[in-house]
Amino acid sequence: MRQSQLFGKTVREAPKDEISQNAILLSRAGYIDKLMAGVYSYLPLGLKVLSKIKNIVRSEMDAIGGQEILMPALHPREVWDETKRWESLKEIMFQFKGRGGKDLGLGATHEEIVVDIARKRISSYRDLPVYLYQIQDKFRNEPRAKSGLLRGREFSMKDLYSFNQNQHDLEVFYSQATQAYGKIFARCGLQAIVTEASGGAFTSDYSHEFQVATPYGEDEIVVCPAGDFVQNTEICQLKTGDRCPHCGQAVKLVQSIEVGNIFKLGAKYSQDMGLTFADENGKKQEVIMGCYGIGPSRVMGAVVEVYHDDKGIIWPASLAPYQAHLLLLDQQKSALTDQVYQELTQAGCEVLYDDRQESAGIKLNDADLIGLPVKLIIGAKTGEHELEYQLRDNSDQGKLKFDRVADFLNQLYKK
Amino acid sequence: MRQSQLFGKTVREAPKDEISQNAILLSRAGYIDKLMAGVYSYLPLGLKVLSKIKNIVRSEMDAIGGQEILMPALHPREVWDETKRWESLKEIMFQFKGRGGKDLGLGATHEEIVVDIARKRISSYRDLPVYLYQIQDKFRNEPRAKSGLLRGREFSMKDLYSFNQNQHDLEVFYSQATQAYGKIFARCGLQAIVTEASGGAFTSDYSHEFQVATPYGEDEIVVCPAGDFVQNTEICQLKTGDRCPHCGQAVKLVQSIEVGNIFKLGAKYSQDMGLTFADENGKKQEVIMGCYGIGPSRVMGAVVEVYHDDKGIIWPASLAPYQAHLLLLDQQKSALTDQVYQELTQAGCEVLYDDRQESAGIKLNDADLIGLPVKLIIGAKTGEHELEYQLRDNSDQGKLKFDRVADFLNQLYKK
Repeated sequence: MRQSQLFGKTVREAPKDEISQNAILLSRAGYIDKLMAGVYSYLPLGLKVLSKIKNIVRSEMDAIGGQEILMPALHPREVWDETKRWESLKEIMFQFKGRGGKDLGLGATHEEIVVDIARKRISSYRDLPVYLYQIQDKFRNEPRAKSGLLRGREFSMKDLYSFNQNQHDLEVFYSQATQAYGKIFARCGLQAIVTEASGGAFTSDYSHEFQVATPYGEDEIVVCPAGDFVQNTEICQLKTGDRCPHCGQAVKLVQSIEVGNIFKLGAKYSQDMGLTFADENGKKQEVIMGCYGIGPSRVMGAVVEVYHDDKGIIWPASLAPYQAHLLLLDQQKSALTDQVYQELTQAGCEVLYDDRQESAGIKLNDADLIGLPVKLIIGAKTGEHELEYQLRDNSDQGKLKFDRVADFLNQLYKK
Repeated sequence: MRQSQLFGKTVREAPKDEISQNAILLSRAGYIDKLMAGVYSYLPLGLKVLSKIKNIVRSEMDAIGGQEILMPALHPREVWDETKRWESLKEIMFQFKGRGGKDLGLGATHEEIVVDIARKRISSYRDLPVYLYQIQDKFRNEPRAKSGLLRGREFSMKDLYSFNQNQHDLEVFYSQATQAYGKIFARCGLQAIVTEASGGAFTSDYSHEFQVATPYGEDEIVVCPAGDFVQNTEICQLKTGDRCPHCGQAVKLVQSIEVGNIFKLGAKYSQDMGLTFADENGKKQEVIMGCYGIGPSRVMGAVVEVYHDDKGIIWPASLAPYQAHLLLLDQQKSALTDQVYQELTQAGCEVLYDDRQESAGIKLNDADLIGLPVKLIIGAKTGEHELEYQLRDNSDQGKLKFDRVADFLNQLYKK
């Protein structure tokens, strides 16, 4: 993509009410646009990152047998009344009236909807197990939405729902899903810590959160240095330095961002909504459920919180909107650089080409702000048939002959 | 995909209040699930079709220079007040209050939002032209929503917005977009008739609709047999048999479905919202806009209205959720059929494999209902190392050696 044609110029200032690093950097670099608190548009660069995250999530959900569906955001009240959550979630759910005074709500979550779909189609043990997921936008009437992509009023969510015959099968799948989540976060460059948290109203069991440690996280977790005990402070009274009964060592408190959350729902929704199956003996049983959430837009925000410096974003290779940023710093060499750009594009490399009539200083600063993993620089001092490369994380730099660049990028992105 | 594991069984009866063919067939075949009037979930088969349509649309929008973005559905009132459309669209737009009594609406269209994004980033003629599009869900408080996917309260939409320096550049792009739309509908198997329609409140010019003739369409168009005059009856008083002044022949009225609509917006939104640029002489000018809509979910419904018979759906190859339906009709041959399935899958063919323990009659009926372009049948009478193929549109059938099947499918899908 030629940067002269890319929509979404970099800007010096983020919207003045933005206080989170992810919102400031993503706004300044032209990835997102703020419409109101907690509600953002994704500009071309931002949508590319979001799509890469969604595709990573999708591939790992498919790998554990997930089948992708797409449920609506607009819900009738009746199905939410069956679980009494129309009332209990009214603070967080947008609720309003459609034609004829019909009560409607925007999906803050989708248990009721997926169970309604499932109960029409699951009747026998032969129909189980089933694992359904969607990647869709959720809406929540959040009291505070000051953390950019970390807490949205409208935000992207992958929610998977598992349907099993019994608790044992749920446990087995829950463990597979936990591992799949680990792979997703690792592929996104995040070290996610599996954390025990409240199971909510429906289970005395813990739920599990995936927490990423950063100084600006909204959550706080209690971590034992021995590594086998992590709890959200919402269920744990220990303070930094307290001895943890579980591991016998002094714990520490860490600020963190929740990027995923998984629950064993058991028979709660099946009971309320009549989701049953006939077992092998013909006996009616309740379907045992679990639910598994990851917010792709929140992951995008979390990655920026973890990967940035004072100059801008530093994307992990897996999420970068383009593989390389080709910078033309000497307008005398524009024909030559055009040719390099064309050859790399034809070789299948995703290249953002800064062909603008701007100073070298502006181009280098913009490249650092946008944060692609590697800069490919052609300037006055570059030798013949070669360019200079610099990794955005400063781990390497050097010179490359033109005919070596595509291989270099392929190597870098195979890692 | 093994059909024994596919979520979304075929059913004999559609929901009893469905009256449109697309809703009846898509429900019975397991593509969609109705949550309420005009609001559907896409089950695994349905989401595959919808994704294929979206990808066709995406590729043709990219080909004319479109840059994909993603705007939110949740909008603040303020930006809609700037064009006075908060009031004028209140019948069709879901409007409600969020925290602090803030007026919020769900996007029925996105001119106001995209202009708000554009005015922050377009300041000079060097920033133009720009073509931005998104594929996103729209919400409309429809009085009637009885036509399945043809008229949704929540529905998928591709909306592209063009930003040009002057009317001439708009006309040039408008013509390119018209051609791109023709390609999209042709790739989806639809013959779309370009139809003059009202330009709405913002232009004395006509807008252009893309209409597909079917007996169950909600629209009616006036067609001259000479082929160079088509108007929506909303702007044309002629009746069947009337002489058309334009072509001198007797016109006929045709029922049809609108699958796309394009408008020259001119300076309407730029004026209301202050979207201007400095031209080459430094003079402030208003940006000239157009907008271009296609509903992927509506296209899906229209395709089913056009392509079905009394047994079920007949998908065009480009939209079929799987390329072929492999039917095991003789359980004695299940190991053999498993092997054929694996080999085809490894060869990159998308195969739905009916491995269920059901009768041949049920499997053949389900295959006709689901409507994949080709059935691959292995039964008691099939010879050694061969299977029988039948095209769903009855245009061809015959026998194939196993090692010829992948080539056969590749040929069929290259057409």
